[in-house]
Amino acid sequence: MSSPIPPEAESETPDGPLTIAQLAALAGVSTATVSKVVNGRADVAAATREQIEALIRTRGYRRQRRPAKTAALIDVLFHELRGSYAIEILNGVEEVAREHRLGVVVSELGGRHVPGQDWVEEVLARRPLGVVSVYSGLAPDQSDRLYSRDVPLVQLDPTGDPEHDAPSVGASNWNGGLSAARHLVALGHRRIGVVAGPGDMEAARARLDGFRAALDLAGVPADPGLVRHGDFSIERGRDLAEELLRLDEPPTAIFAGNDGTALGVYHAAARLGVRIPEDLSVVGFDDLPKARWMIPPLTTVRQPLKGMGAAAARMVVGLAAGETLPQQRVELATELVVRESTAPPRR
Amino acid sequence: MSSPIPPEAESETPDGPLTIAQLAALAGVSTATVSKVVNGRADVAAATREQIEALIRTRGYRRQRRPAKTAALIDVLFHELRGSYAIEILNGVEEVAREHRLGVVVSELGGRHVPGQDWVEEVLARRPLGVVSVYSGLAPDQSDRLYSRDVPLVQLDPTGDPEHDAPSVGASNWNGGLSAARHLVALGHRRIGVVAGPGDMEAARARLDGFRAALDLAGVPADPGLVRHGDFSIERGRDLAEELLRLDEPPTAIFAGNDGTALGVYHAAARLGVRIPEDLSVVGFDDLPKARWMIPPLTTVRQPLKGMGAAAARMVVGLAAGETLPQQRVELATELVVRESTAPPRR
Repeated sequence: MSSPIPPEAESETPDGPLTIAQLAALAGVSTATVSKVVNGRADVAAATREQIEALIRTRGYRRQRRPAKTAALIDVLFHELRGSYAIEILNGVEEVAREHRLGVVVSELGGRHVPGQDWVEEVLARRPLGVVSVYSGLAPDQSDRLYSRDVPLVQLDPTGDPEHDAPSVGASNWNGGLSAARHLVALGHRRIGVVAGPGDMEAARARLDGFRAALDLAGVPADPGLVRHGDFSIERGRDLAEELLRLDEPPTAIFAGNDGTALGVYHAAARLGVRIPEDLSVVGFDDLPKARWMIPPLTTVRQPLKGMGAAAARMVVGLAAGETLPQQRVELATELVVRESTAPPRR
Repeated sequence: MSSPIPPEAESETPDGPLTIAQLAALAGVSTATVSKVVNGRADVAAATREQIEALIRTRGYRRQRRPAKTAALIDVLFHELRGSYAIEILNGVEEVAREHRLGVVVSELGGRHVPGQDWVEEVLARRPLGVVSVYSGLAPDQSDRLYSRDVPLVQLDPTGDPEHDAPSVGASNWNGGLSAARHLVALGHRRIGVVAGPGDMEAARARLDGFRAALDLAGVPADPGLVRHGDFSIERGRDLAEELLRLDEPPTAIFAGNDGTALGVYHAAARLGVRIPEDLSVVGFDDLPKARWMIPPLTTVRQPLKGMGAAAARMVVGLAAGETLPQQRVELATELVVRESTAPPRR
């Protein structure tokens, strides 16, 4: 009779794919370190990462608890289930889920950005293939619990907390802000207001920085008095736009941080009798379905939300299959869509 | 040693709850019939249903395969994941799911109204507590497969196919149509156009019938030439409203079958230089979040979509727990919300 052997060391598998324990033994590192690499986490020394990835490339990798204990599910966590932003992303996840015959489990945080402990327990109990979190972050102990149980996590539009080192997907927000400003400058605008998104959100910061860069590159002075920070809501968009339009020297154009904010700008303009685009040009960001149905139809920066959802889901599927991600951060291109809310300034 | 006994007859449970097989034996009917009753289906003779429900009330009922094989999931099937209609319903389901610590699995049919066979197989494989189908119907063999495997199904806004006899949830659409027409008549309108929803959808038919009833009760002749059937889309709403507004004697008000259609009416009006509400009053249906952000804010009939999602989820949870539904069809009240898109006619 053979003596009991820990399962990790049970098989040498000279040709087959390696488990985390076998990879750790071969690389001379801890299983936690290997786990970080196969789950796409950032906090591993580059040399160690390369060594483990090379082993995986030549030998292959197999998850220990899979596939027996994994349900054919992918979890999507939304900070808030409101409006088309969430629906578009969900459609992208659904597309990939259908390909792989996975059910999509949707949770929402009711506007908070960090889930409760219950949520983590429920996810661990149902054992999905992995988790996509949208504009929401897990507390470090929560993501650690997922990753120690081999449940990969991919973030879409991260909240910006540097502690969150999971792989992520976003749009090229900086370039989007750049193209919005260039369009307005090319039309002849010089006094351009901004109702940006929350100052602590990565995507919102990138849009504003790109916008400022375009003004700077064009030699147009950026007036800090024309910049306001909203919260991506229609209400705040309206109120902050009204502030800008009531200035002694109001802007001739406003760049809104998202389409909802742009709709708020429309309301402020309607309230003050300011005509769009004759008296005021407006550029949004997102190109949600409503943008082309605003009156007048909104010029906006399209971010491919459905494609972002699909990309995040593909990353989860890949990580769950033991693949190494080609990149930790995927950015999909944005594109300016010119409609009828922008025109040259009157003077 | 005792001889093998089929599991259904294994226990007499003189005091405990009864399984489907035990209920069938006591009532002298087939297990299929009992299964229909406990799953809330309509196609059972009234006397038989009452007999079985009486047995369940006095003795109790326990599912055979539960809880061991059931996942803590509830499945929601959408005909289409677009816009706030789906999001509002999903929020209601999420609310009930959180109470019961269930994951919500979301699927969509990409605009079709009947799912593919794959979907049924996937549902049976993951064994949710039950299924809510939204504005979509299962083919008879598909719902039979669910119900033979003891997976309850509740329909929200059924498509109107009389073959679908599952329990259902909706809004009081007829009353909503009635209140919309009464509001316009009270303002003095007599030539009222309608851009209704699809003629084969129950909810759309009920809204139109309620609208006609109000005109009839008020002694206002309903002109069939002022009624158009759209498909709930903004595009069709715009095109059909334009037809109405180009008539030699155009209507002074339009009742739109949903808020999307009402937005289409706004576009037709903008295109033709018709002012809302000065030249044209508009009433929508739904009260989606966008309604109050239309310019001018839309008078509309609110249906409690979140409440409807919650009610459907509660029915699934109840059926899965072996409860008898107090009613097969739940209708939640609608309510007219008066905003700025309606006013007395100019002449």
